[in-house]
Amino acid sequence: MSDHHVVVVGGGFGGLQVVNDLKGAGVRITLVDRRNHHLFQPLLYQVATTILATSEIAWPIRRLYSDRPEVTTLLGDVSGVDTAAKELALRDGTTLRYDTLVLATGATHAYFGRDEWEPVAPGLKTLEDATTIRRRLLLAFERAETSKDPAARDALLTFTIVGAGPTGVELAGIIADLAHKTLPREFRNIDTRTTKVILVEAGPRVLPSFAPELSAYAQKVLEDLGVDVRLGQPVTNCSAEGVKIGEQFIASRTIVWAAGVQASPAATWLAGAADRAGRAVVGKDLTAPGLPEVFVIGDTASVVQENGTPVPGIAPAAKQQGSYVAKVIRARLAGRAAPSPFRYRHQGSLATIGQSAAIVDFGRIKLKGGIAWWIWGIAHIYFLIGTRSRFAVAWSWLWIYLSGQHSARLITQKETMRDES
Amino acid sequence: MSDHHVVVVGGGFGGLQVVNDLKGAGVRITLVDRRNHHLFQPLLYQVATTILATSEIAWPIRRLYSDRPEVTTLLGDVSGVDTAAKELALRDGTTLRYDTLVLATGATHAYFGRDEWEPVAPGLKTLEDATTIRRRLLLAFERAETSKDPAARDALLTFTIVGAGPTGVELAGIIADLAHKTLPREFRNIDTRTTKVILVEAGPRVLPSFAPELSAYAQKVLEDLGVDVRLGQPVTNCSAEGVKIGEQFIASRTIVWAAGVQASPAATWLAGAADRAGRAVVGKDLTAPGLPEVFVIGDTASVVQENGTPVPGIAPAAKQQGSYVAKVIRARLAGRAAPSPFRYRHQGSLATIGQSAAIVDFGRIKLKGGIAWWIWGIAHIYFLIGTRSRFAVAWSWLWIYLSGQHSARLITQKETMRDES
Repeated sequence: MSDHHVVVVGGGFGGLQVVNDLKGAGVRITLVDRRNHHLFQPLLYQVATTILATSEIAWPIRRLYSDRPEVTTLLGDVSGVDTAAKELALRDGTTLRYDTLVLATGATHAYFGRDEWEPVAPGLKTLEDATTIRRRLLLAFERAETSKDPAARDALLTFTIVGAGPTGVELAGIIADLAHKTLPREFRNIDTRTTKVILVEAGPRVLPSFAPELSAYAQKVLEDLGVDVRLGQPVTNCSAEGVKIGEQFIASRTIVWAAGVQASPAATWLAGAADRAGRAVVGKDLTAPGLPEVFVIGDTASVVQENGTPVPGIAPAAKQQGSYVAKVIRARLAGRAAPSPFRYRHQGSLATIGQSAAIVDFGRIKLKGGIAWWIWGIAHIYFLIGTRSRFAVAWSWLWIYLSGQHSARLITQKETMRDES
Repeated sequence: MSDHHVVVVGGGFGGLQVVNDLKGAGVRITLVDRRNHHLFQPLLYQVATTILATSEIAWPIRRLYSDRPEVTTLLGDVSGVDTAAKELALRDGTTLRYDTLVLATGATHAYFGRDEWEPVAPGLKTLEDATTIRRRLLLAFERAETSKDPAARDALLTFTIVGAGPTGVELAGIIADLAHKTLPREFRNIDTRTTKVILVEAGPRVLPSFAPELSAYAQKVLEDLGVDVRLGQPVTNCSAEGVKIGEQFIASRTIVWAAGVQASPAATWLAGAADRAGRAVVGKDLTAPGLPEVFVIGDTASVVQENGTPVPGIAPAAKQQGSYVAKVIRARLAGRAAPSPFRYRHQGSLATIGQSAAIVDFGRIKLKGGIAWWIWGIAHIYFLIGTRSRFAVAWSWLWIYLSGQHSARLITQKETMRDES
């Protein structure tokens, strides 16, 4: 074991990949995260929509490395980096001396300068976000059931999703399924089939990262599910009463924000250049300018490859960057030449729409419908961590398939005063 | 369908039994609960101790009655009862006219007049209580791992459970198992095997509702698991720093309250007599004095049977009372004579200690150890609602049995300022 100390900040896809790929490299590793769990974000929308339980898509980070005595896991919140002293500072006053630092701290949702929208239009990045959205979704139906005012009832039964990327499309499809298929038999005073689900997108099509014909298919499936898809229309205001799309106000008590991403403050810690989304601009070897011992990867890094294309902010890219960083560290320790610059290899894109359709875009091969849905499901179960979660998620999906009943329909946590209105 | 309207308040064991047993009785039923879910409280301690996920032991109430169009489920908080007008008032201003009212609103924990202890010594009655205790439990280990002060570390690794009834015994056993068996390999700076678990009981033995020889056995198993059992010693103070037992102060940052029960305010709504624990004193037919159309059952009722013995505050008693009330309502509707007074039939008591021992007390038959554990497990899976939960819980238990890994070790929700100290 060398004395080299690698500090990794962030236990997301990128950070874990660094730690995984440094197995046996003979370095001491400290992994710091604000949360005690790694979260499988691609399925977070299923927690928000009552399909999966929180523990099915999240794992205690320290358990993942219980058999790696050289890995120390710390629950901690980073307050800054002293790049001269090579020290990471945590909010509780602890400092960690590093030889190599990897910042993989991810991103959160952005409101394009309208942060006042956040309380009424929560985004979906953490387990708490998911249970918040789930609670608001379920409470809207509950309140509609007891409401005597038809206008209030309509506003309660109108759900608006802002942003038609994969998260927005997946949320809209599942909420429509829930309202139109799962819930109708359970309410006596309202007809949940009258629920309106509105998907608003400023751009010209849904799922813009897919091929146009797949976007068109996804839009048709959404519309068949009863989703009102509004393209080319920016949201101009969000409030507790509703949403303004262009000049039109729509009474909608539940708004979910699935547009815009803001990087974590890693760039600020390094006092280096950042792009418009706050991501740290790093070199082609993923190190910060002038700081060869500091790597920045994943959603918090802005990387332009040698061929001039940017690396997308998705899980496979973060994992590839994590592997690359581990390779660079190993080469340096061994005194070998640095590997060639990082190159992102796109393996394909997948998205689901509702409970039985999906699209798969492998470049030359494009699939849609039921087959794509099976590929999507198998791929996601494959990428989950551990036998237990794979079984649990497969069982939850099978159960919904057989019974039509969602299993995680719990309203928990207390609402703030604002929500009680 | 007659016009008779039965309003049931509370979707616990008692309330659901009334609704279940009124199937086909030709009455209109409204079931009101503050929560949207029925909770299987006997396994709540397993959510608090990272074994089960919340959705495995809770079910949306309205789903249970989706095929009973005469049953309306309302999410609502009762503010009072106008017994003269036969009207139930909800906090949102709604009123419900009833012909028959069943109050099955349960109980919460009581601090014997020391309510200021609640923030530092949370009890275990709701899903939020369980996730709060789980968070504190897991955070204590996390903070001990980063703490540099040996005294603070010891206080963080000392857990105190107040009250040695079934919940207290079950919590103490599982926490000891978690600290001494599951966690040791995951921490680098602390040895979780040095964790102290203290079970304090003012009375002379653990599990006082069981036969003395079973109490003695349970105590021995607890002590073998490393639990420090302190009998005949009342807790005289609880604070953020620790607990005072008699005159001795013990530094303990995590305290769980498993002693004392306080009934819901049902007795206050009826302005009738209440016992020391706030339970409404009702007649031998479970109706409130002078109000033959108002029944009170379960943990919020105080019933002395014809043979002079009180009905215990446990789930089987609440279910039997629910069945009895449904029988009385049916008899009245049919113009038949009232059934004979309610009589509680004790079917036995079960409790687990840690992950492989249990005790079963069927009166003449008393069992302990592995066989009792299997009976306990099968009985609890049997009483869960629905195939899905039975499979999910059985799978979670099997997984822990095979892998030794708890699955629900997530720290969620934000801590209040007080806890961050």
